[in-house]
Amino acid sequence: MADPGRYSYDKLERVIHEKARLGIVVSLAAHPEGLLFNDLKDLCTLTDGNLSRHLQVLEESHFIEMWKGAKKGRSQTLVRLTDSGRTRLMDYLAELDRVVADAAKAVGQMGKLRVSTT
Amino acid sequence: MADPGRYSYDKLERVIHEKARLGIVVSLAAHPEGLLFNDLKDLCTLTDGNLSRHLQVLEESHFIEMWKGAKKGRSQTLVRLTDSGRTRLMDYLAELDRVVADAAKAVGQMGKLRVSTT
Repeated sequence: MADPGRYSYDKLERVIHEKARLGIVVSLAAHPEGLLFNDLKDLCTLTDGNLSRHLQVLEESHFIEMWKGAKKGRSQTLVRLTDSGRTRLMDYLAELDRVVADAAKAVGQMGKLRVSTT
Repeated sequence: MADPGRYSYDKLERVIHEKARLGIVVSLAAHPEGLLFNDLKDLCTLTDGNLSRHLQVLEESHFIEMWKGAKKGRSQTLVRLTDSGRTRLMDYLAELDRVVADAAKAVGQMGKLRVSTT
């Protein structure tokens, strides 16, 4: 075989490749000021339990930080992407873009795909 | 919240979102004639056991088909992407491209990302 490991995509970091967590980090990247737990839940269509579980994994991996506080008299949790989380997301995205490019080229529909999604 | 479900990415089909299986289907998409088990193993840097397990999942989901045969006197397995597998891969890719576009826009590095990976 000419190119061993050509499709191993080692840089797809598992922590954020998981579908729900990918949605979480992308939505946080789009909101640098942070998002409240409940807004994040709606944006990603997750239950309380699921979102809590995924946030715990992301916090343990230092992708995000959580801040306890209050808004309109109710206790709230603010979630933000860390600086290193942002950097690691970019590395992940570069690899993901390579997957899309590889696959789009392979299926011979690159132009079509790119046009339809931008 | 303005846009519930905006980052839920429902079309990221779980069967092929899994990192190893994503590598397998992309490499098969790049080789329409099919790939031998051992070549696929090298291209994706997987062990025999892991590749077997992932191929079983992909076959049960009708993404791939497997053919038993012989080459140079040795029994071999040829693996090919099915037509429906190819179509579903394209749907998945369109969604994945949306993730990349969302995230790249969010981190404000879209141009840089695209240039660095194409």
